[in-house]
Amino acid sequence: MRIAQVAPLAEAVPPRLYGGTERVVSYLTEELVALGHEVTLFASGDSRTGARLEAVVPRALRLDGGVRDPNAPHVLMLRRVLAGAAEFDVIHFHLDHLHLPAMLGRGVPFVTTLHGRLDLPELGPLFAAFPQAPFVSISEAQRRPLRDVPMTWLATVHHGIPRDLLRFSPQHRGYLAFLGRISPEKGPDAAIRIARAAGIPLRIAAKVDPADRAYFEAVVRPMLDGPGVEYIGEIGEAEKSAFLGGAMALLMPIDWPEPFGLVMIEAMACGTPVLAYARGSVPEVVEDGVTGLLVGSETEAAAALGRIAALDRAAVRAAFEARFTARRMAEDYVAVYRRLLQADPVAAARRTPPRLRVA
Amino acid sequence: MRIAQVAPLAEAVPPRLYGGTERVVSYLTEELVALGHEVTLFASGDSRTGARLEAVVPRALRLDGGVRDPNAPHVLMLRRVLAGAAEFDVIHFHLDHLHLPAMLGRGVPFVTTLHGRLDLPELGPLFAAFPQAPFVSISEAQRRPLRDVPMTWLATVHHGIPRDLLRFSPQHRGYLAFLGRISPEKGPDAAIRIARAAGIPLRIAAKVDPADRAYFEAVVRPMLDGPGVEYIGEIGEAEKSAFLGGAMALLMPIDWPEPFGLVMIEAMACGTPVLAYARGSVPEVVEDGVTGLLVGSETEAAAALGRIAALDRAAVRAAFEARFTARRMAEDYVAVYRRLLQADPVAAARRTPPRLRVA
Repeated sequence: MRIAQVAPLAEAVPPRLYGGTERVVSYLTEELVALGHEVTLFASGDSRTGARLEAVVPRALRLDGGVRDPNAPHVLMLRRVLAGAAEFDVIHFHLDHLHLPAMLGRGVPFVTTLHGRLDLPELGPLFAAFPQAPFVSISEAQRRPLRDVPMTWLATVHHGIPRDLLRFSPQHRGYLAFLGRISPEKGPDAAIRIARAAGIPLRIAAKVDPADRAYFEAVVRPMLDGPGVEYIGEIGEAEKSAFLGGAMALLMPIDWPEPFGLVMIEAMACGTPVLAYARGSVPEVVEDGVTGLLVGSETEAAAALGRIAALDRAAVRAAFEARFTARRMAEDYVAVYRRLLQADPVAAARRTPPRLRVA
Repeated sequence: MRIAQVAPLAEAVPPRLYGGTERVVSYLTEELVALGHEVTLFASGDSRTGARLEAVVPRALRLDGGVRDPNAPHVLMLRRVLAGAAEFDVIHFHLDHLHLPAMLGRGVPFVTTLHGRLDLPELGPLFAAFPQAPFVSISEAQRRPLRDVPMTWLATVHHGIPRDLLRFSPQHRGYLAFLGRISPEKGPDAAIRIARAAGIPLRIAAKVDPADRAYFEAVVRPMLDGPGVEYIGEIGEAEKSAFLGGAMALLMPIDWPEPFGLVMIEAMACGTPVLAYARGSVPEVVEDGVTGLLVGSETEAAAALGRIAALDRAAVRAAFEARFTARRMAEDYVAVYRRLLQADPVAAARRTPPRLRVA
């Protein structure tokens, strides 16, 4: 299949810095290539891919202080996508909604994965105005705020990561892990209280964005002075296996409806169970009693830590391999693309005749 | 003619707060209605107009703290414009470039007025990708950074304000005026030094945006302590006639290529000449020796103030009436619309048969 992936330009694909969407687009793109598809990736020029790269800007916008109007390169990207539209069987957008007016009524098969939270009040009226545009959610929970909006959901496709990206670790080394951004919604302060109540050391590997600096200084930093908590700053991809694999559990006491939460499946890839508040996507990703424990409060979380070491780390890894690899994600998306093309007789007719392909 | 005006949603049309683009869209829309055209205004629901209002959001985004994603209501607006496109002879966008991919190849006559500065490096590649899209600049100077970009400029249309918006004042009251935002590019510190060097009192009517607060505190506020400078804060439309009309001259020692500068024609409407640095649009708007004096430095500016009282305030007002009324602006735009329709045989053919109209 001839597939275009259209990524945000804020970060490279894969991202140099934080960028969940760009990471997922990268994993998906490379797996589609591995499956034998002809893939074109619209992204910043500092992206690295086995697909054909359509470089819209030389550098990712977050690293390019010269760009003041981030819409401008995205509008340019839409122009490039429209120019090449006839060359693709399907165009897969990861831009939220900016492309919807451009694609309206063009007779070009496209689908949009929504990567962010959908509880902003401005989104309902917007999506209601595009009732025919096909969307994919990254969890069932993500859709809930839009349940009354007439729109076309093709599927939920949970994220996946490459099977061998992170190493399985059969043994933990006796600490709890917190990984991600330091921000109120991620609950680092709750994680510290939970770990202390359970009497287990906590290691925090997290970045602090400028927007969250005041919260970090006022709330989190004073808590770091006490015993049993180690703040090790931001870590890179290469350090994740050791950090997550050594943990008895990943703590996710989130205070928001997480649309997916890649860190949960990263922990599972290492065999590390997840102790999380059952909010947002969490109950879809974590199987209570198998790959982690779902709790509702700090007290419950601290008590549950007594049981979490009893979970079978090999079973956690097996669940990851069964449900959250990039290969599974890519196959799910190929199924979405096929449904899209079957539903669109114009598109089906104009497709190129079949030739010998791996997939 | 059936005309759609598509305004930004940041501010109402006309704006409650600062919003040069929305003010101009309002003046243009009302004059087009007065000229007998059928006008539809796409804008926020708190806009006030004699045209048909297509309210895209209830309130202007700058006043609605609930909207986190300002692209979302603009995308919804584009959907509404496309839905109604067949009802218009021409669609006039004031959105920079967000609409360009949506309008590409639709066979719908449209034109875009660019209201902002065009020296951002991301704009050249973007506009080069839409070589057929017709644009209007608000000054010749505004276009200069894009002189090497292949794009379609239909015209320059200088802004205008309603003829009777501000009162002509045959006599000044012996002070200099600074009106606008307090920001480094507007040069309030230079204005203070110029006024002091000339020994003439200066009155500053200006708002301070959060982004400019540090500059105000560090640079401007300490200068206010000396003699001869009065800072009166932000003033409303109702106070402008008295403030500008009482001034011997408006000071515009700008440190950027101002794309237009509405305040210059507001001063001229009051009969008040403009003393300005000859940057950006200024030499197109101010006729040196008639409606003001063009200078290149603070020293030159202070010296020129000795001559400015000799300019004929009635001649300044007459120049305003000849060149910068909203009526003249609207007539210029109607000429642009007609050229657009003549150039587009499809559009010309699908236009409704002529009926009896005022214009």
